[in-house]
Amino acid sequence: MEEIGFLGMGIMGKAMAMNLLRHGFKVTVWNRTLSRCDELVEHGASVGESPAAVVKKCKYTIGMLSDPPAALSVVFDKGGVIEQICSGKGYIDMSTVDADTSSKISEAITSKGGQFLEAPVSGSKKPAEDGQLVILAAGEKLLYEAAIPAFDVMGKKSFFLGQVGNGAKMKLVVNMIMGSMMNAFSEGLVLADNSGLSSQTLLDVLELGAIANPMFKMKGPAMIQGNYTPAFPLKHQQKDMRLALALGDENAVSMPIAAAANEAFKKARNEGLGDLDFSAVHKTVLGDKQ
Amino acid sequence: MEEIGFLGMGIMGKAMAMNLLRHGFKVTVWNRTLSRCDELVEHGASVGESPAAVVKKCKYTIGMLSDPPAALSVVFDKGGVIEQICSGKGYIDMSTVDADTSSKISEAITSKGGQFLEAPVSGSKKPAEDGQLVILAAGEKLLYEAAIPAFDVMGKKSFFLGQVGNGAKMKLVVNMIMGSMMNAFSEGLVLADNSGLSSQTLLDVLELGAIANPMFKMKGPAMIQGNYTPAFPLKHQQKDMRLALALGDENAVSMPIAAAANEAFKKARNEGLGDLDFSAVHKTVLGDKQ
Amino acid sequence: MEEIGFLGMGIMGKAMAMNLLRHGFKVTVWNRTLSRCDELVEHGASVGESPAAVVKKCKYTIGMLSDPPAALSVVFDKGGVIEQICSGKGYIDMSTVDADTSSKISEAITSKGGQFLEAPVSGSKKPAEDGQLVILAAGEKLLYEAAIPAFDVMGKKSFFLGQVGNGAKMKLVVNMIMGSMMNAFSEGLVLADNSGLSSQTLLDVLELGAIANPMFKMKGPAMIQGNYTPAFPLKHQQKDMRLALALGDENAVSMPIAAAANEAFKKARNEGLGDLDFSAVHKTVLGDKQ
Amino acid sequence: MEEIGFLGMGIMGKAMAMNLLRHGFKVTVWNRTLSRCDELVEHGASVGESPAAVVKKCKYTIGMLSDPPAALSVVFDKGGVIEQICSGKGYIDMSTVDADTSSKISEAITSKGGQFLEAPVSGSKKPAEDGQLVILAAGEKLLYEAAIPAFDVMGKKSFFLGQVGNGAKMKLVVNMIMGSMMNAFSEGLVLADNSGLSSQTLLDVLELGAIANPMFKMKGPAMIQGNYTPAFPLKHQQKDMRLALALGDENAVSMPIAAAANEAFKKARNEGLGDLDFSAVHKTVLGDKQ
Repeated sequence: MEEIGFLGMGIMGKAMAMNLLRHGFKVTVWNRTLSRCDELVEHGASVGESPAAVVKKCKYTIGMLSDPPAALSVVFDKGGVIEQICSGKGYIDMSTVDADTSSKISEAITSKGGQFLEAPVSGSKKPAEDGQLVILAAGEKLLYEAAIPAFDVMGKKSFFLGQVGNGAKMKLVVNMIMGSMMNAFSEGLVLADNSGLSSQTLLDVLELGAIANPMFKMKGPAMIQGNYTPAFPLKHQQKDMRLALALGDENAVSMPIAAAANEAFKKARNEGLGDLDFSAVHKTVLGDKQ
Repeated sequence: MEEIGFLGMGIMGKAMAMNLLRHGFKVTVWNRTLSRCDELVEHGASVGESPAAVVKKCKYTIGMLSDPPAALSVVFDKGGVIEQICSGKGYIDMSTVDADTSSKISEAITSKGGQFLEAPVSGSKKPAEDGQLVILAAGEKLLYEAAIPAFDVMGKKSFFLGQVGNGAKMKLVVNMIMGSMMNAFSEGLVLADNSGLSSQTLLDVLELGAIANPMFKMKGPAMIQGNYTPAFPLKHQQKDMRLALALGDENAVSMPIAAAANEAFKKARNEGLGDLDFSAVHKTVLGDKQ
Repeated sequence: MEEIGFLGMGIMGKAMAMNLLRHGFKVTVWNRTLSRCDELVEHGASVGESPAAVVKKCKYTIGMLSDPPAALSVVFDKGGVIEQICSGKGYIDMSTVDADTSSKISEAITSKGGQFLEAPVSGSKKPAEDGQLVILAAGEKLLYEAAIPAFDVMGKKSFFLGQVGNGAKMKLVVNMIMGSMMNAFSEGLVLADNSGLSSQTLLDVLELGAIANPMFKMKGPAMIQGNYTPAFPLKHQQKDMRLALALGDENAVSMPIAAAANEAFKKARNEGLGDLDFSAVHKTVLGDKQ
Repeated sequence: MEEIGFLGMGIMGKAMAMNLLRHGFKVTVWNRTLSRCDELVEHGASVGESPAAVVKKCKYTIGMLSDPPAALSVVFDKGGVIEQICSGKGYIDMSTVDADTSSKISEAITSKGGQFLEAPVSGSKKPAEDGQLVILAAGEKLLYEAAIPAFDVMGKKSFFLGQVGNGAKMKLVVNMIMGSMMNAFSEGLVLADNSGLSSQTLLDVLELGAIANPMFKMKGPAMIQGNYTPAFPLKHQQKDMRLALALGDENAVSMPIAAAANEAFKKARNEGLGDLDFSAVHKTVLGDKQ
């Protein structure tokens, strides 16, 4: 792969760009607050003065922005990606954005002759640093193939999922299963406790069985102590449940468990728990015990 | 531990008794059809002519029967455990039985001065052969402690959960979470498929994330091929959901996800899927696609 | 109809027996606390000194007791119905009891050669006084036919539903629909209120439309004022939901709405609302607004 | 009230305009296919050549169009309402449209200085002919007050609900309760039938009790014969459930019963029942019995 552009030096972007540098890629970085690029420069990165400047210089540019407005801004604002993207250049948006944002960016890039790939990741700070992200790519297949060497050092695994939008959909499906599981887990913890069993023992038993999984292991001990420090805020999880249900509605898929879980998360929001971790739905199940 | 009695040479019991023999325990076995004891005898086991005869000879006797009627039968029928159990002797029922059965046996044993432990296991044929069962014991603590050396060779881990009944309750809680998860998983598989995503890719993505677990890994590939060969029959899973909900009712625990999952399993029963694996609830979610 | 016996002079029994007297029936009454019979005697009733004495005197005897223990007690205790029931005599239990209680009484009566009818009623104090009850009879058809003249003055309508147990089942089905409707109604009231609409206007609109019904009209105004004075306690409604779901389980009927409503009632019990009216589930839906 | 304009001579509009004529109002009508105005003219109506012409002539104009595109068309197309609406004139849209359509029309009318009222109705052909509609008005209060004489002859009752959008919201709340009730009713019918009770008797018992309502009475007999001729198509009912749940989501109202009902309607859509009456959800509950 030629020199790679990288827009967005937040916690995730910085770690991902660093991995590229460490594995010998030439990287030109940009960030709204330029000082956040310093560490990268020490490791050999060049700096571009605007997204457009980065795109001009590089055949491929990756964006890793914090949210949809930021993702739109680097593309459409003055000095944005759109000013220099053209045939022969590619833009890979690895931010987590909604389908609308993704398709707006996709249309703008391709209408200028550029190639586009959405490639949201699963995994947070630690996996980003360790090059252990899971990358859900969708859009231009040729661009995906060109990006594989970069994906290989940023992630442990990348998937090509077809047309633009499929990356976001896959994340919704996964998060929908995760949200329902968190509810089932919460109900189990409360049922055990109220039935005179030890919640800790339940965690130990679960850990040894067919449904053992990292989420139960990571979050269970905090939950039984009433600690719901936000990693993935409940209101975002509820939004993903809602979007997954809407996707099901479009396709006439009846999902009674997801629907019940969504209402439980809404109950939690109603109780003011929206900014806590999504595991705080446990507090709603606990009810008066709390 | 002294010589151990072992009643019931079904698939599970035979594998468990064999592990005891392999690790140097002296074992006296009994089975309704005596020929099923032959292989054990070749490996050094003695044979008792009745449950009572086994109990008479051994300080501790383990029962591993196929169902509640069989579990009651070895205790209460002519020549049953009850005829020889007495102070200084213990009976450990490792069968999976309901709370009523367990407490009937418990009362009978203790009223004769004997010690009683219920110790249902989690895990099937393979873990039984490999000594990798998880043992959920409840009842007489001293008997539990005496049984630890035997439990250590039959299982990878044993838990003491308090009073008789708690072993069964813990299994219900675990199976309730499992049943809800299976429903969430099924909804996710169908949502992916109907939204134009590959079910196999969903399995691959799940396997790499925070909710990866052996059940998804084991059952997922079969499910997307419509293969629901029974390991744990759906009607039994639904019965456990119902019992878990009843336990919640007693303790005023509201469990909307478990309730929705229970109704989905009932729908599957209504569609004639009760004897298939509990993963066949997937077929119900699929609906007309099938 | 010949002279009728009447056991149980509670609020309901007294009103029902009074209607019989007013319409010219000869009635012999009994009550545990005999003084509660005085008013009836003023209106021409005779008094029996025990249930057995009443049965001895009358060809047909009606029981209207407060709960299953009381219903069992008048039949099986010393001086009970069972001592004098015999071929040619009938016993009609109009109490609301569970299926087990009903079938115990049925078996005892019929094994002595007597005829038995269960005939629980729908309607409370006012309909009892006005002869406007709805009577759900099941058991001996000939006894039902003989009782029609009495049923005609106590109720506005009676049904014969077949074998013993069907009266109780029909009540469960009706109460299940009622409990689900109460939940839907509560959700609607809260949705209107939280969306900036007037709850009172919602009541007015509902009253004019296709789903107008006495329950919404009667309970709605109290509910929007947070008044849940018990007419039918929430814990009893939840018990009926549970029994209806169990009936569905036996017959493989999947009832996701009833299951969700049952969990909402359990949530309300968990919040300490079990002794309020079943409309108090509204308070649970309100959540933090309260 | 001065001369009234009336746009849209469909089944509903024709019956409503006829009632105005019958009660002595002067009415100028318009319809895309002009011949549909003939009968009105025989009863004394004038005809306008376009919506704009009607608005020019009348102080108040009512629109009753079949769907959102038609409602938008009479306002915005060439010769539309917008060309002549101005200060001192009012437009009352009685069509059933979504919130977006309503607010687009509202903004256009008021930006030209006109008054606007949305006034969707509850009730179909027969109530329209009999002047028995229920009118849910929202928007300009003064216009509402001016329209009361007309509303009084078209409907049995009208409500003023505040700002534009509230009429649509009130309909959603009512339809949400109705959809949940239809599900509860269906579950009850199937539970009765599968438990050996007569569905017809259940209808009779319900009719006499606290939850008796026109919908059960009207639709019940057809449902138990498997007749789901569409009056209100299931796919529209499901859409209203979805929109009501979305309204709840905005306001953090948890509605588990509505959510379960919505999934049941989606199941029915998945089974190809979307174009039948919404009572066809009964067929889904029936399952294999069908």
